[in-house]
Amino acid sequence: MDADVHTLKIKRPSTPSVAKLQALVAADMNAVNQTIIERMQSPVVLIPELAGHLIASGGKRLRPMLTLGSARLLGYGGTRQFSLAACVEFIHTATLLHDDVVDGSDLRRGQQTANIIWGNKATVLVGDFLFARAFELMVEDGSLRVLRILSRAAATIAQGEVDQLTTTGNLDTTEDRYLEVIIGKTAVLFAAACQVASVIAERDDATEAALESYGRNLGIAFQLVDDAIDYASTADVMGKSAGDDFREGKLTLPAILAYARGNDDERAFWRRTLVRMDRQPGDFEQAVAIMSRRQAVTDTLKRAHLYGERAIDALAVFPDSAAKAALIEAADFTVQRAY
Amino acid sequence: MDADVHTLKIKRPSTPSVAKLQALVAADMNAVNQTIIERMQSPVVLIPELAGHLIASGGKRLRPMLTLGSARLLGYGGTRQFSLAACVEFIHTATLLHDDVVDGSDLRRGQQTANIIWGNKATVLVGDFLFARAFELMVEDGSLRVLRILSRAAATIAQGEVDQLTTTGNLDTTEDRYLEVIIGKTAVLFAAACQVASVIAERDDATEAALESYGRNLGIAFQLVDDAIDYASTADVMGKSAGDDFREGKLTLPAILAYARGNDDERAFWRRTLVRMDRQPGDFEQAVAIMSRRQAVTDTLKRAHLYGERAIDALAVFPDSAAKAALIEAADFTVQRAY
Repeated sequence: MDADVHTLKIKRPSTPSVAKLQALVAADMNAVNQTIIERMQSPVVLIPELAGHLIASGGKRLRPMLTLGSARLLGYGGTRQFSLAACVEFIHTATLLHDDVVDGSDLRRGQQTANIIWGNKATVLVGDFLFARAFELMVEDGSLRVLRILSRAAATIAQGEVDQLTTTGNLDTTEDRYLEVIIGKTAVLFAAACQVASVIAERDDATEAALESYGRNLGIAFQLVDDAIDYASTADVMGKSAGDDFREGKLTLPAILAYARGNDDERAFWRRTLVRMDRQPGDFEQAVAIMSRRQAVTDTLKRAHLYGERAIDALAVFPDSAAKAALIEAADFTVQRAY
Repeated sequence: MDADVHTLKIKRPSTPSVAKLQALVAADMNAVNQTIIERMQSPVVLIPELAGHLIASGGKRLRPMLTLGSARLLGYGGTRQFSLAACVEFIHTATLLHDDVVDGSDLRRGQQTANIIWGNKATVLVGDFLFARAFELMVEDGSLRVLRILSRAAATIAQGEVDQLTTTGNLDTTEDRYLEVIIGKTAVLFAAACQVASVIAERDDATEAALESYGRNLGIAFQLVDDAIDYASTADVMGKSAGDDFREGKLTLPAILAYARGNDDERAFWRRTLVRMDRQPGDFEQAVAIMSRRQAVTDTLKRAHLYGERAIDALAVFPDSAAKAALIEAADFTVQRAY
């Protein structure tokens, strides 16, 4: 255990980052941003105002970067990836707007959320608009295969979000069930973002499957690290602050593992705080302490590592290239941003 | 004025209904209902449970009926209209679910709304699911032209809904602006529902334009009658009870006309009740009385008549048939259900 943490810490000086991928796709991302800004316009001014607040709030644009990086990996020389990357970002943004309404969040990326500024009504409806706009972008692309992948992804995301609601307050949720939930709500869009590059580059099924696997495993790793960060008491990483999930009573893998491994007292603690939502001062600190005792965060990160490795292994079929190195480092970063 | 009301009342004994259209498409509607039930399924049981509550609640399925009736009008002999009609109903249902969250409604079609039974979170997310499922159905149909019409419609609906939010509390909204809003939020889906029949029947642009016009004008008439019914003190028509819009402070054409025509006292009344939302007992009765004095409801219905006539005139290009007669009577019913 200690040795493991030690190993991870040693890597720190050469912390991987998404900088390589960002540099690789910088020019392409300008084209994507252009499309995003153009296509969120509407004669109804509240729409670009509200959508722009979130879109300009400094998200990393990780999902569109994956589409662009995957297109580079395949040496695709066209321009269809720009609008598809914008489409993926619109789907993601629509999801975030609805999530913030659903969770009653007040902060995202360090800024007030749209639901706080403009209210739930406008936020739900602008989310719907962006979602519909995403479909218009896909339809303009004109590939039924792309439409199939992305419309499937959109349905699966919504299904995953509802699925997560139904696990709320159920501490007996198994790790397998939880994986299903996060594949639906997070990993499927990562997978689709990568997969569409293979379709527009007209590559074979094996290529498409490799990119789908890279995206899916990266998405799982991303979500697991996100879950872990929430219980790392000092964390302020990627705009997320510790304790958000705990405060909202969200059931994530660290909590599932801690409950499964807990003694009677600990289980009573989790039932009080995450099921009955009956909170006392110092509860979050105690949650972190129990997590540490049960190695729940550490083991969540170990799982994330595993999926990060799988993502990287999925790229083995591609010859070495700057794009491949950038995608590998992005996967490393996704996993190690928690340390 | 009196003569006009009298004329309308005389028509009552032979009240038009949608029965003819319902009978014409009854067998087709079974196929549509089959598709609806199949495609709202999900391993996440809350989804069919919540969606089924609204879908089974006895809506008239007017929009899918229009798709089926239009396909019959064109003598289309295939089966593609079934999944497209289901798709149109899914888009409509998703919109209703989000509307009920946005408006905080507690009753629809005489039943408790999904947001009251299952909460806002699940209702928003199941709406997203149905919307995504609608796109999957379109993609399966495989026509890019159909995809373009329906994805455009979906974006326009969301835009119209946001637009309506921005007119809330603005009593100076003009009739023209209001028409733009209801074309977006209501008429565009009626239009698309009819228009797609021409695409699958592979008919020419003039046919497509005629069906689009029928649907659009019918949709405008439908919404205007809906607005009028709300201020008809005795109304309990199509599951809607009087006073809903007034209670929610929704700005509709009757209120726009009454305000524009009002004296200082009346305008002060509308500002207090619809802008400041400061309500006193008897306000709704007074609203109805002012409407009557200013002929605001009557004139809203006159406008509805006009659009209903336009819808019927748009069908002039088609030879007489049982389907044409049924679509004409459906337009008559849409306008006259208020009397």
